[in-house]
Amino acid sequence: MSCAFVAGVGMTRFGRFPERFIKDIGAEAVLEAIRDAGVNPAEIEVAYCGHTRGGSTVCQRILNEIGISGIEMVNMEDACASGSAAFRYAYLAVANGMADVVLAIGVEKLSDKIKGVIPPRKDDLEGLFGRIMPSVFAMIAKRHMYQYGTKVEHFALVSYKNHLNAVKNPRAMYRKELSVEEILNSPVICEPITLYQCTANADGAAAAVVVSERKIKQLGKLPVRIAASVLCAGGARVEDWDYTVSLSTVNASRRAYEEAGIGPEDLDVIELHDCFSVAELVHYENLGLCPKGEGARFIEEKRSYINGDVAVNPSGGLLSKGHPLGATGLGQVYEVVQQLRGNCGERQVENARVGLTHTMGGGVSGLESGACAVHILVR
Amino acid sequence: MSCAFVAGVGMTRFGRFPERFIKDIGAEAVLEAIRDAGVNPAEIEVAYCGHTRGGSTVCQRILNEIGISGIEMVNMEDACASGSAAFRYAYLAVANGMADVVLAIGVEKLSDKIKGVIPPRKDDLEGLFGRIMPSVFAMIAKRHMYQYGTKVEHFALVSYKNHLNAVKNPRAMYRKELSVEEILNSPVICEPITLYQCTANADGAAAAVVVSERKIKQLGKLPVRIAASVLCAGGARVEDWDYTVSLSTVNASRRAYEEAGIGPEDLDVIELHDCFSVAELVHYENLGLCPKGEGARFIEEKRSYINGDVAVNPSGGLLSKGHPLGATGLGQVYEVVQQLRGNCGERQVENARVGLTHTMGGGVSGLESGACAVHILVR
Repeated sequence: MSCAFVAGVGMTRFGRFPERFIKDIGAEAVLEAIRDAGVNPAEIEVAYCGHTRGGSTVCQRILNEIGISGIEMVNMEDACASGSAAFRYAYLAVANGMADVVLAIGVEKLSDKIKGVIPPRKDDLEGLFGRIMPSVFAMIAKRHMYQYGTKVEHFALVSYKNHLNAVKNPRAMYRKELSVEEILNSPVICEPITLYQCTANADGAAAAVVVSERKIKQLGKLPVRIAASVLCAGGARVEDWDYTVSLSTVNASRRAYEEAGIGPEDLDVIELHDCFSVAELVHYENLGLCPKGEGARFIEEKRSYINGDVAVNPSGGLLSKGHPLGATGLGQVYEVVQQLRGNCGERQVENARVGLTHTMGGGVSGLESGACAVHILVR
Repeated sequence: MSCAFVAGVGMTRFGRFPERFIKDIGAEAVLEAIRDAGVNPAEIEVAYCGHTRGGSTVCQRILNEIGISGIEMVNMEDACASGSAAFRYAYLAVANGMADVVLAIGVEKLSDKIKGVIPPRKDDLEGLFGRIMPSVFAMIAKRHMYQYGTKVEHFALVSYKNHLNAVKNPRAMYRKELSVEEILNSPVICEPITLYQCTANADGAAAAVVVSERKIKQLGKLPVRIAASVLCAGGARVEDWDYTVSLSTVNASRRAYEEAGIGPEDLDVIELHDCFSVAELVHYENLGLCPKGEGARFIEEKRSYINGDVAVNPSGGLLSKGHPLGATGLGQVYEVVQQLRGNCGERQVENARVGLTHTMGGGVSGLESGACAVHILVR
């Protein structure tokens, strides 16, 4: 396989834009990514668009807005990992020699579709009995507390850090510093998870232009290389299943480290799937940043802060930047690329050279996740 | 690129099954394809699922039903060409050496979602003013009549042939022979298109197992090779645009012929996108089966009948087999593979060796189609 590089990224602010069409939201991010890459729109050979609720032919509708037509376009869905799936297939198209210039888009408009929690489908028996996302993560939190002595304050600390980071991110949805006390005293959603420890549905889009080695040299851009790309569904639940472990995250990240030839200790910046505060804490462990059961200590010692061992969610993460489902994976790519380029101003991670994105999608009855995507980017 | 082969196919009957879950409909087709291929479910390395309205993580939900988990799964959407997109990516995964055994699924359950015509989206200005599918194809019909002297009877003949074919297809939705008179006298949907010249929304699923050369030899199956795979969006409308031409079909089929090293005269069997009777007639021309303007003569001379020059839609096509949007492309693959294997009983095309599938997806304001997929299969 050939090398593939990110030549350009674009992103709207994440938030609620009920008055905008999804195609306009998407086009804003695409235009920024194309300009950032310095490519001509006519050079784009293939385009992938990740979304979950945009309706039919979203990719086509977005690109029609900016005069791109006739090329191969595919819309991809893997729940909250949809944008990451689009990014992976852009990577594959270049790595497999199908094309020199490929566009990946992630977009979502939820403000006119879902208020609060995503309701279970009528064929989701467990969901109908209450096993929806907040309950799942509340059980994970409870179990982690039981097994490892983790306290509710540790979960709240994650949310505190991410809200602090988002204050410095002009594209984040929530840019307000919250104290640990405020976080713990916010309304209980599903005990021990409180409101300010949940991500918020959002509208928004992000995009990336992925190019071949030949093209990145021609463009004269700082080469941000895609060193690993892994996408897998969750494993089946088994008898000895540990509720505090995301097996798909463990498997996907180990494969990605091997593919990139690095270890977790080499990472400078991570954007990971903090749909709830507890998710980030357990993913410290799942990604191998610390031993199993030591997630609480990891956040307590501020090792995931911007100036810690590895900056986790310097953008504010899903918790504060907002979570436009299909756009989230490419929003993570946007942040990591800008960090590796040194473009992040007040929230810049010093001398960031190696970054990782991690996105989880969905949850199927009997599976721990519908999709898990891990990408490693290196400058 | 390596060679890729279809080792197994499966398909439900197309029809209306409001009492079934989409995951059950999909699982039925997948199980048949897996058994037909003779592979172990655990051998499947990647799975793609095409659908347009099944909700989030349909691929995961279907495969969870039959105990497949942990592998890469991506849901793909390209309107009515969604199943063909899934088939193309299964082909690419094998051709690019990513995997030896890949599953492509197409599935849809429309009976609880859409009655009659698909309504326009609120951001589709032209659709809101009446430019929906029946109107578009009525305009194509009118223009063809004006430019080439085609008569309404010619369009009706297409529908007559496809209904006749479907009588011999136990998996078709409508299995009733209709006379040209009955077709012309059925209620007018959009003049000159009458009810029996429109495809019908349906529920259903189809699936294919795509494998490498090494694997097809090991399985000892008749090798049906994927000789060409092309997917592209429609071109932008231009000043001198001819309403009777589908540029994306012209372009995709020419590229496919080149890729396969064959011409239209080599085709024995075709499953093409006859969403309306007029569509099949103009696609005779678009696919190069006859010169421009001679589609009427082509059907009049019965050259597209099962015993004609090339059997077009021996399954009954979208007009009679039914049109479960995301499943249609793989339903076409099912028919062509069974024809190449000589498994089609009363509707068998004698000594079929080369087959083509053609699927069109969507229509975006200002574009003539959202997606066009052409595959060529050879035994």
